[in-house]
Amino acid sequence: MAHIDLGNDFPGIRGPMAYSPKTAQPMNDFANALLATDEGLSKGERELIGAYVSSLNDCHFCQSIHGAVANHYLGDESTFEAVKCDLPSAPVSGKMRALLSIAASVQKGGKQVTPEQIETARKEGATDRDIHDAVLISAAFCMFNRYVDGLATWAPTDPDFYRHRAMKVAELGYRSEPESGYFPPQ
Amino acid sequence: MAHIDLGNDFPGIRGPMAYSPKTAQPMNDFANALLATDEGLSKGERELIGAYVSSLNDCHFCQSIHGAVANHYLGDESTFEAVKCDLPSAPVSGKMRALLSIAASVQKGGKQVTPEQIETARKEGATDRDIHDAVLISAAFCMFNRYVDGLATWAPTDPDFYRHRAMKVAELGYRSEPESGYFPPQ
Repeated sequence: MAHIDLGNDFPGIRGPMAYSPKTAQPMNDFANALLATDEGLSKGERELIGAYVSSLNDCHFCQSIHGAVANHYLGDESTFEAVKCDLPSAPVSGKMRALLSIAASVQKGGKQVTPEQIETARKEGATDRDIHDAVLISAAFCMFNRYVDGLATWAPTDPDFYRHRAMKVAELGYRSEPESGYFPPQ
Repeated sequence: MAHIDLGNDFPGIRGPMAYSPKTAQPMNDFANALLATDEGLSKGERELIGAYVSSLNDCHFCQSIHGAVANHYLGDESTFEAVKCDLPSAPVSGKMRALLSIAASVQKGGKQVTPEQIETARKEGATDRDIHDAVLISAAFCMFNRYVDGLATWAPTDPDFYRHRAMKVAELGYRSEPESGYFPPQ
């Protein structure tokens, strides 16, 4: 049971977002600006970074939904699992491995990112924009994850729930309008 | 020097926000929705929570600017310093002490918040909305702090810089428009 009465029984971040639409609207706008674009990093790569950081923060809801969205865009269900289990051996590009490593440092704290990590990312082909986006995605999920778990929201255990939601997110983006199917009417 | 070429020399979060206006706009909208309101918690109390979490995250720029904004609203420069040094003895209400304690747990990780902390906050008069806002403010600063330090932005050391900025923030809110004086022209 959530720490507060949210006035709804929507799972994960949908509960507090329905409770607080004034903050939910710019949070969704932000998620779309950061995640729903293929400029530089692809949507799948962005979601993979977010899902990975959510797994490091042990946030069941976020790693499940964003893992499912990443799987949807990447076209397989094995990449995220492999990244989560062992990043060094996961079947991702050198650039993505370097950016995921930077994201993992940001998850611990901003000052954990080292010049050597940045240098490695550059050598693997990462641009300034890629590095910026990887840092901000990791930082953003450190917020989303804490919002979800800091209020003790509940999370479905059925993977099909997340597969279904992932298709809705890919179709409609992150929205608070009821027609998106991702967030409830307010 | 920042980890990437931001194309400007603005301090703290202003650097990456000028570099990335598409994500800066909803981040500022979000900051205003969450911090620039006296509904329930006052603006000063909200800024105090943000400044405290920034100090726990060891983010010099954020604790300096949001500490200065909190000081501006609270009308003194001693409360934030006292909270930062020793929360149990700081001259704040029982409700604020309980909410700051919840914020400190969220800073460590969402699952660190205990039912006992929630119960204490309620006994001290905190509403569901107060608890929600304290959790989200802490979560949000875990993002802002990581954005600032994950890119190794620079921060002025002169306290007067932050005092001046704080008055601008109080006057104009968090904005990316140049006339705000807080974020540069883009």
